[in-house]
Amino acid sequence: MNQVIVRLAQRPLGEIVIGEHLVVDRDVPVREQLEDGEVLIRVMWLSVDPAMRGWMSSAKSYLPPSPLGEPMRANGVGRVTRSKSDKFDVGAVVSGFLGMQEYSILPEKKIRKVVVPDGVSPRLALGVLGNNGLTAYFGLFEVGHPKPGDTVVVSAAAGATGSIAAQITKGVLGCRTIGIAGGEEKRLWLSNSLNLDDAIDYKNDDIGKALKRTCPDGIDVYFDNVGGVTLNEVLKRLNRGGRVVLCGAISSYNTPGSPGPSNYVNLISTRSKMQGFIVLDYAKQYPKALADLTCWLQEGKIKYEEDIVDGIANTPEALLRLFKGQNLGKVVVQVAGDGDLQAFRSSL
Amino acid sequence: MNQVIVRLAQRPLGEIVIGEHLVVDRDVPVREQLEDGEVLIRVMWLSVDPAMRGWMSSAKSYLPPSPLGEPMRANGVGRVTRSKSDKFDVGAVVSGFLGMQEYSILPEKKIRKVVVPDGVSPRLALGVLGNNGLTAYFGLFEVGHPKPGDTVVVSAAAGATGSIAAQITKGVLGCRTIGIAGGEEKRLWLSNSLNLDDAIDYKNDDIGKALKRTCPDGIDVYFDNVGGVTLNEVLKRLNRGGRVVLCGAISSYNTPGSPGPSNYVNLISTRSKMQGFIVLDYAKQYPKALADLTCWLQEGKIKYEEDIVDGIANTPEALLRLFKGQNLGKVVVQVAGDGDLQAFRSSL
Repeated sequence: MNQVIVRLAQRPLGEIVIGEHLVVDRDVPVREQLEDGEVLIRVMWLSVDPAMRGWMSSAKSYLPPSPLGEPMRANGVGRVTRSKSDKFDVGAVVSGFLGMQEYSILPEKKIRKVVVPDGVSPRLALGVLGNNGLTAYFGLFEVGHPKPGDTVVVSAAAGATGSIAAQITKGVLGCRTIGIAGGEEKRLWLSNSLNLDDAIDYKNDDIGKALKRTCPDGIDVYFDNVGGVTLNEVLKRLNRGGRVVLCGAISSYNTPGSPGPSNYVNLISTRSKMQGFIVLDYAKQYPKALADLTCWLQEGKIKYEEDIVDGIANTPEALLRLFKGQNLGKVVVQVAGDGDLQAFRSSL
Repeated sequence: MNQVIVRLAQRPLGEIVIGEHLVVDRDVPVREQLEDGEVLIRVMWLSVDPAMRGWMSSAKSYLPPSPLGEPMRANGVGRVTRSKSDKFDVGAVVSGFLGMQEYSILPEKKIRKVVVPDGVSPRLALGVLGNNGLTAYFGLFEVGHPKPGDTVVVSAAAGATGSIAAQITKGVLGCRTIGIAGGEEKRLWLSNSLNLDDAIDYKNDDIGKALKRTCPDGIDVYFDNVGGVTLNEVLKRLNRGGRVVLCGAISSYNTPGSPGPSNYVNLISTRSKMQGFIVLDYAKQYPKALADLTCWLQEGKIKYEEDIVDGIANTPEALLRLFKGQNLGKVVVQVAGDGDLQAFRSSL
């Protein structure tokens, strides 16, 4: 059996070039024999994440670099189609680093069963009920500690993680919440669909002035996904004891050497902190977090949008969409064809 | 009675220019009448601090700007020579914001009694047993949380605050401690007199390479007084869960718009924080801190150097010495003449 894969062919230094750094290979044979404890997984959906840019680089980080020459690392949801594992039977719906490929062979310890409420697509285990929801949750509750009445600013607020962070602070905690995103469509979505207190279109507004206008009493918590100019302007307006949650810095991932936030000096006089975190550290607390997120989802406190790209071969383009900010909500690649998905659904 | 004062005549935007921003005025009359609760203080010593640069600017900060046209704000130690206060008799040795002048009239609530151990100059209430010691103490114990065995880096380690921070982590806590300072004399002082594990002369070494060489196992805590390139290079080498204590950023005080630390992004993958603090917030805990500092001083765990400048009129030059890094240890201006000091000592 052969498959299509997206191979990490070269590590980008600046922007990702399709066909150079990420290469689509067709007719790649899938290994026939499973070892004990391994399963063969038909990949259904792949998550597309800003973190991939880090995994593509050679830099030592919280995970080793995605190996060169192999399918690029990607979180995915799939269905077990053959099994030499006692833990996962054929038909089991699982998630894990399935990689940019149509079939994935993995040892049982590297995957976990997908549990989502009735009537909800298992695809959500890649987004609101997966890393994005968990990242928003632990970034807020373990680092940012927003309190009711605080002014909270979220960047990339129309993105998969930011949109959840903003809805938790607004709808669950009762913070005054301001979202930042690029473009009028996203700004309106933040104001009208997510009901945030205000929204800023950083592409068509002066971010400094817009923050001053929308946060007249300063900023207590900033959930940052972008870095760059926006972070620097927020630092200028932090209140005493402010907390900057460093979740990501997508504005600088493709431009090494881009300037740092000179206003970090304000952290001193405002007695504020800027702190990073990695969601994987909180794995033991995932069950409680997922229960909360599921509850908020069912209560309508969290809404989500998906930007579904069709076909494994379009995964590189899907990733570039993300870096260009062309997505609203979660970018997911649908890998399995309609037939596979029907079989999949009927097995649920 | 007339006196010499140093007046804040204009707010600097970049470097401080003597005669332009700080002006020496002679023959300024001292107010004759005291109000109820006020004391007249003969200023003995004035502390010269990097924070003064911030107080000179118009920016809103943790203290209001030092008022234009008046003696520049400065911490000092002096002797009460007239009193309309029930709390302070003539002869009392007090400290507070006495200002750059020879005589200060202040209400009793703005000063406090100086308490130092026998045989120790009350001048130390401006340094190791005053703001510098307290700043090192609370920056470490409330923000940096160094643990025995941690690798700790201290910048401006030959300065008044840095030298105490480095000695606390080395001698009291048993951390591997590396000090950074400018020039061979300071480097040798850090290694030989303070017995730090290693010392870096940033003026004659590549700071990145030197940190790599002296911190082969990475950096757990960074006590930062300087900002700039040094901060950026430390951020590159932070260990997981690293703590950057933002105490000051003297390298950028005179150069607004200097680049921020682009390696702040490493705070994410290392789950680290960068946090500012202001020593005044911990005033309630000063007695315990001063007791500890006094104890360490008497045990020889903390040594100190003083850089004593003679005469109020030389205060502006003393401040510039600090920004040029020409001092070793605490810069203090001795305001009182020999006669005054003798009277002062005999009254202790």
